[in-house]
Amino acid sequence: MRRIRLTLEYDGTNYAGWQRQINAVSVQQRVEEALRRVTGEDGLTVTGASRTDAGVHALGQNAHFDTGCRIPADKICFALNTALPKDIRATGSYEVSSAFHARFSALGKEYRYLFYAHPHASALYANLCAHVIYPLDTFLMNLEAQAMLGTHDFAPFAASGSVVKDTVRTIDAISVTENPPFITLRVHGNGFLYNMVRILAGTLQAVGTHKLESGAIARALESKSRLDLGVTAPPQGLTLMRVDYPRELTGE
Amino acid sequence: MRRIRLTLEYDGTNYAGWQRQINAVSVQQRVEEALRRVTGEDGLTVTGASRTDAGVHALGQNAHFDTGCRIPADKICFALNTALPKDIRATGSYEVSSAFHARFSALGKEYRYLFYAHPHASALYANLCAHVIYPLDTFLMNLEAQAMLGTHDFAPFAASGSVVKDTVRTIDAISVTENPPFITLRVHGNGFLYNMVRILAGTLQAVGTHKLESGAIARALESKSRLDLGVTAPPQGLTLMRVDYPRELTGE
Repeated sequence: MRRIRLTLEYDGTNYAGWQRQINAVSVQQRVEEALRRVTGEDGLTVTGASRTDAGVHALGQNAHFDTGCRIPADKICFALNTALPKDIRATGSYEVSSAFHARFSALGKEYRYLFYAHPHASALYANLCAHVIYPLDTFLMNLEAQAMLGTHDFAPFAASGSVVKDTVRTIDAISVTENPPFITLRVHGNGFLYNMVRILAGTLQAVGTHKLESGAIARALESKSRLDLGVTAPPQGLTLMRVDYPRELTGE
Repeated sequence: MRRIRLTLEYDGTNYAGWQRQINAVSVQQRVEEALRRVTGEDGLTVTGASRTDAGVHALGQNAHFDTGCRIPADKICFALNTALPKDIRATGSYEVSSAFHARFSALGKEYRYLFYAHPHASALYANLCAHVIYPLDTFLMNLEAQAMLGTHDFAPFAASGSVVKDTVRTIDAISVTENPPFITLRVHGNGFLYNMVRILAGTLQAVGTHKLESGAIARALESKSRLDLGVTAPPQGLTLMRVDYPRELTGE
């Protein structure tokens, strides 16, 4: 048996998220079905780095699986793409050691959140961004975002119902940039709580439209209260950009 | 009766092009249906600036129609968007004089053609760009493209079956730029023959992959032969960016 690492890109619009579910089609299910077809291994399962939500996209999802098939590792992504639907693509495949685990080996992740600030929604990019009718003050948003930097207990950024015990994470890069009508939030950290980026995006949007006073993030990190933050922004604006691993484990 | 100019954006993926057809849904049909609902005028028809093909997108299509409805001109786009499908948006509406005609008043147009040069197709942007498996030499492509500049008889760039008599057009701006894996062709001119931009894109792609020798465009303009050019590139890479009108006619 060999362990294979996959890099994956998908449009999350037509899926109930990454994770396999009953009564709904997930990205994981489609990848597993395609891999079973390609390898002939009926029991093959795939482990993803991030359980992206319904409607959330990925340009740099990572996953791993074990296989006894004889296809050269770097050719598996090409074979896989012949069996995958058009809105899911394998962008790379690498043989890795059994020490590699898509989720537990991850050192960090980067997410992008795209706003489309315009009186009218976008027809062409409707599934790729969150529509905001009012102008956004990107200077204020970028300034506000910097409060995320460093190691904090991000408990107020965890969606209710989240069961994680340790809510301390480190954010080491964050920016809000503008290319009208698009406004892009990029955030990199060693890990993210469930819905953390969407709550961050909703909070920055509220600050950017002056519905929430500047300093909301610092106040929430102090008070630990979800109520000091904005609403959870919609899923379609969110894209998982990359997952970082120790260089010696990536197989690249 | 007032004449109204509309600016429109659409994702052409699910449409048989701009022009109303039997047995297929067109953008024009959807816009007319929505305007009839909003104005209550059953016979209302819309005239577009450009008859974009099936699968071709628009960020800056223009159209006009005449109406006796009492909705303020600048509010029509908002009303229209409540009745349009999500992949078609009106981005503006302006009262214009009866001298304005979306097609005949146009002074120029700009198109964009997007290539996605990568071993694997894009999942996220599949409907917005043409996938090219091999690397493209964008320096060569941009150099080649400059041969389009000026006033020429572009007959070799007209799709066979095209019935236009006068095939002389003026191209006044053209560029090929790169933001890997995206390569963008932008071209502005006073008019375009049927499939002209797609034949241009296919030719530049052939030059960029060394399938066609540099100088192909100059040779074709000299020989008048379609055979000196590349194949017609697929529709999904093409987007109508803007239509220019005399400033005094736009209603803005």
